[in-house]
Amino acid sequence: MSEVKAYAASSKTAELEPFKLERRDITKEDVEIDILYCGVCHSDIHTVKNDWKNAQYPVVPGHEIVGRVTEVGDNVKNFKEGDLVGVGCMVDSCQTCDSCKEDLEQYCENGATFTYNSKDKHLGGHTFGGYSEKVVVDKKFVLNVPENLDIEAVAPLLCAGITTFSPLNHWNVKKGDKVGVIGLGGLGHMGIKFAHAMGAHVVMITTSPEKSGDAKKLGADEVLISKDEEQMKEHANSFDFLLNTVPVGHDVNPYIGLLKRDATMVLVGAIEPLDPIHGAGLIGSRKSIAGSLIGGIKETQEMLDFCGKHNIVSDVEMIDIQNINEAYERVQKSDVKYRFVIDMKSLKNS
Amino acid sequence: MSEVKAYAASSKTAELEPFKLERRDITKEDVEIDILYCGVCHSDIHTVKNDWKNAQYPVVPGHEIVGRVTEVGDNVKNFKEGDLVGVGCMVDSCQTCDSCKEDLEQYCENGATFTYNSKDKHLGGHTFGGYSEKVVVDKKFVLNVPENLDIEAVAPLLCAGITTFSPLNHWNVKKGDKVGVIGLGGLGHMGIKFAHAMGAHVVMITTSPEKSGDAKKLGADEVLISKDEEQMKEHANSFDFLLNTVPVGHDVNPYIGLLKRDATMVLVGAIEPLDPIHGAGLIGSRKSIAGSLIGGIKETQEMLDFCGKHNIVSDVEMIDIQNINEAYERVQKSDVKYRFVIDMKSLKNS
Repeated sequence: MSEVKAYAASSKTAELEPFKLERRDITKEDVEIDILYCGVCHSDIHTVKNDWKNAQYPVVPGHEIVGRVTEVGDNVKNFKEGDLVGVGCMVDSCQTCDSCKEDLEQYCENGATFTYNSKDKHLGGHTFGGYSEKVVVDKKFVLNVPENLDIEAVAPLLCAGITTFSPLNHWNVKKGDKVGVIGLGGLGHMGIKFAHAMGAHVVMITTSPEKSGDAKKLGADEVLISKDEEQMKEHANSFDFLLNTVPVGHDVNPYIGLLKRDATMVLVGAIEPLDPIHGAGLIGSRKSIAGSLIGGIKETQEMLDFCGKHNIVSDVEMIDIQNINEAYERVQKSDVKYRFVIDMKSLKNS
Repeated sequence: MSEVKAYAASSKTAELEPFKLERRDITKEDVEIDILYCGVCHSDIHTVKNDWKNAQYPVVPGHEIVGRVTEVGDNVKNFKEGDLVGVGCMVDSCQTCDSCKEDLEQYCENGATFTYNSKDKHLGGHTFGGYSEKVVVDKKFVLNVPENLDIEAVAPLLCAGITTFSPLNHWNVKKGDKVGVIGLGGLGHMGIKFAHAMGAHVVMITTSPEKSGDAKKLGADEVLISKDEEQMKEHANSFDFLLNTVPVGHDVNPYIGLLKRDATMVLVGAIEPLDPIHGAGLIGSRKSIAGSLIGGIKETQEMLDFCGKHNIVSDVEMIDIQNINEAYERVQKSDVKYRFVIDMKSLKNS
């Protein structure tokens, strides 16, 4: 056991503040990681505020972790001291259910162990995330990060990246497909980059005309203003795939109207009730609505390798951990382009 | 042109009554059919009552037509006088769009010509359906009916049959799959028969325990009472496919909970707004909701051939056309097992 510096919220109303937590000693299967950077995900804020009614305090958030290996267990052959690695939303799963056997640990039928706020199989209590100096993780949940990438901007790939890459990959988005990305935030900006790199004709779909310039810089070929009925009509029944990153309940019927026959819109953000969907919109052209949750470990590695090959990282704003509470306020106002990343030097030197 | 006997509604409030309509002379491409039987579909009633705000009066309903060929045009090679044939929901389509080229005329991008209440390309005005002595139809929209089937009970296959067969077929339901059929009416009873014949383990899902006996006679292996929370929990996350035949808006969230990861629920009945769907239910296990509309002509022929092979017909109650208004009242009370079929002798002899 070793005590490490971290930042935690002690209740749903408290601000995050310095906290000491215990990390386990490595087992034969473990990798110990010195955390260099940790991304700030909206889920961190939802958990701290107990929006999903499942928070366990103290909460140490953070599931977009990039660091370097400091020690490995005897049975760890694929990582060594000094390797640049990442840890995403999960640190364990049952490894025996059908989902785990199919490399879809995020859908583990016995419940994956999430990086924070999940039952800790080793120490009891609950897991603590990446707003900390170091973490000890089972080798199966550690990812290789390509060294050619801008390391500061890699962390958000571990959640925002895989959340958008996985559905584009699973639904076989390919060269020439017309793909719409709905919503331009932490998820949406990654969706544009991936769909563009996959060779799709990418349309950013947003309510905000002022986001057009940024969307095009990120790789969008077109911008569709969803409030403009004329524009929506012009694009009716024309999309091969829609990636819906809107993080709250909303009216998806206008977007269903954009899909081609047999095409799918995948939700990755809205874990709330949607406005009533008209059955006729689906029935009339055999359209589908689906959901998708992050990605499995194998696919997350594929995503990182894809990023290495195409030189894709997130657009980030670096912060010190002492500014985390201000960053949370700005995330809630969508005032970030497009993801905050905590430089952990600020924690270590504190 | 020839004048034929029919039954029509002259306004949304009128009862159906005797009506004379003009059928075109056959062109080189046409088949003339003496109508023996016509099924009564809930859509007939919706159209007569102008529920969908698109009715054109007088309405002659009927799109589940079985009859014998009386004459064929010069270019018709695959039908001859005396053949037992069927006509379903469509009598024409553009034949040039992508959907038509892919044998999916029901999704014709220029709008299929439906059997009634659609623009009539030949005579102007609108099309008239099967509550009539005869019909003249382009050969491409005429189907072969296997002679081994009980002819009286074939008519509903042309709409209720293909509406349920097509999604089971398109989503590849196969031997051993656990398939749920939600709702036991005209559509649901055909869904059970088809899923059973495809080798699936069929679960009838209904709010009505009193339907259990009938469901099992039709081929269901199990009955799940959707109001029983214990039973619903036992079946959670266990279905490979759900066919939702409920004809009105409803709460689909409990059914989404029944799907396995990556499985799909297909709506074939509810062309209305559904109760709000919880995004988390789809995202948590990459589930899908889709819609499906009847089927193309090629697939409808496959369905009829499948019925011939497996000796599948509808469960029907025969009526004379003089009793059509009473039948409509009973359909609206779900008081029919499971489809009314009009014996057209009653019209011819009137």
